[in-house]
Amino acid sequence: MKYIYGVDLGGTAVKLGLFDGDGRLLEKWETATDRSEGGGHIPSQIAAAVLKNMEVRSIAPGDCLGIGIGVPGQAWPDGTVDAENLGWERFPLAGPLLDATGLRVEADNDANAAAMGEYRLGAGRGTGSMALVTLGTGVGCGIVVGGRCLRGAHLAGGEIGHIQMEPAETLTCACGGHGCLEQYASAPGCARMAREALASSGAPSALRDQPDLDAKAVWDAAKAGDGLALEVTDRFCKILGRGLALLAGVVDPEIIALGGGVSRAGRALTDRTAFYYRCFALTFCRDTPIVTAKLQNDAGICGAAAMLLADR
Amino acid sequence: MKYIYGVDLGGTAVKLGLFDGDGRLLEKWETATDRSEGGGHIPSQIAAAVLKNMEVRSIAPGDCLGIGIGVPGQAWPDGTVDAENLGWERFPLAGPLLDATGLRVEADNDANAAAMGEYRLGAGRGTGSMALVTLGTGVGCGIVVGGRCLRGAHLAGGEIGHIQMEPAETLTCACGGHGCLEQYASAPGCARMAREALASSGAPSALRDQPDLDAKAVWDAAKAGDGLALEVTDRFCKILGRGLALLAGVVDPEIIALGGGVSRAGRALTDRTAFYYRCFALTFCRDTPIVTAKLQNDAGICGAAAMLLADR
Repeated sequence: MKYIYGVDLGGTAVKLGLFDGDGRLLEKWETATDRSEGGGHIPSQIAAAVLKNMEVRSIAPGDCLGIGIGVPGQAWPDGTVDAENLGWERFPLAGPLLDATGLRVEADNDANAAAMGEYRLGAGRGTGSMALVTLGTGVGCGIVVGGRCLRGAHLAGGEIGHIQMEPAETLTCACGGHGCLEQYASAPGCARMAREALASSGAPSALRDQPDLDAKAVWDAAKAGDGLALEVTDRFCKILGRGLALLAGVVDPEIIALGGGVSRAGRALTDRTAFYYRCFALTFCRDTPIVTAKLQNDAGICGAAAMLLADR
Repeated sequence: MKYIYGVDLGGTAVKLGLFDGDGRLLEKWETATDRSEGGGHIPSQIAAAVLKNMEVRSIAPGDCLGIGIGVPGQAWPDGTVDAENLGWERFPLAGPLLDATGLRVEADNDANAAAMGEYRLGAGRGTGSMALVTLGTGVGCGIVVGGRCLRGAHLAGGEIGHIQMEPAETLTCACGGHGCLEQYASAPGCARMAREALASSGAPSALRDQPDLDAKAVWDAAKAGDGLALEVTDRFCKILGRGLALLAGVVDPEIIALGGGVSRAGRALTDRTAFYYRCFALTFCRDTPIVTAKLQNDAGICGAAAMLLADR
């Protein structure tokens, strides 16, 4: 039996999973991220966790396909990592981990890792290409074509959160631009559009009594038939559908999966987004399925492990 | 010595080129496309031309790496081709050609073939990824990543001519949409914007005396300092730069090459487009070079042959 370790490196916790060679999760655990000395101990922290597990389980190095790591930042081809929330700039991660374990190490941005997981083990299983679009605090995206992630020459592949959707927008995005997809089709974007709609309309709405108005409240109200919430979620889906049509016009994936917190809205989100997607997409790719992602809580470690799986 | 045949199949002419194994053009010729019987003789027409050249040059089948063909339509993975101007729908092209010659056959859409040529033999030589954006009657695009063209699950990869740039546009595009990139950043789009500018402005302009106002006239006038033409070409470059930033936000190529008739405007086009590209692109990929394509007249046959070349 062959084994793979999947590691989801975050600013707070290092999540680890042991997988078999078919990508089945056998065991998972986590440990607090050692942020001392600029995160300089993280490679040996991960190495120690992996080596200890191998010892406990009597896994020989020859039976281990390697370690996949998703990082909260840019993973460069030379094995170094930029990660703002760890204070890393070109920090050597893969090299020391390889030296300490003797195992193959694959590191990638966490959005790309999640896309690989979804492609090999989730909604994209059996397809030849997939885009995973993550709707959370921001809009992330990983695109897999023929078993490889489109990382981009400057690691900007799949950064659709910052493509400009509304040239006339006056609000500035965190990236410095204006009218970015992320300003609308994220959780904060959804809440902001709701607040604006409440301020500019006199219509009654359950959202008016909401102390902490967030995206979940908006989607819940829309599902309960609240008119104003329905308008906001419709606008959300329209701009997202248009953004996905742009994406399809460039890479034309076989399937598009929606993940992240907002994707919990389920078919209320995917059906309406698919409706607008079809309005804007080229005839050829008008029927591309838009579905919710399948991997939920373990998406991080599954995606990291999936980088070591062969195409099947 | 190894040989490759590159074939550029058009509605009027079949252009053929004999290349060496490094992609150098040794000989080229063309013949009128045999459109009789729904183009049913085209495979044997191409086979005969190739076999005759092999005989004349005493090229053994073992010394020939194969035949690459660029087609004016969709080339499906099973070797069939859809080509509106030949009346082809799922027409078997690659199979009969393989049967008749015994040679490896690779067929692809002509825009993708051109991109492969530019990537391996032109402006993209030595890079790991490239987008070739063709500005002509329409806006075409081929994207090469790691030596492979992003053809797309429904062959819509790189169809950026129809991504929606201006949601507020009222004019309808040939695709049925409105506000498509092609409505502005093509040769007819450029001429239309000039006509509109002339109609809505009283400013003097050399373009007013132009009987057949086309894109070339607009660019020539802009280069000569004509104010109205400068405004039009500036608008052209702004919308193109924004479109290229969208493309870069999805695939982030190492270099972007501009081809097609409008690209003859040269640096007046690329410099201004790069300026606007940088306004809209993510920081990571703000410095992506935007250059004119290098392969000109022989781009079709070079691109077709390039599909048979290995990555170097």
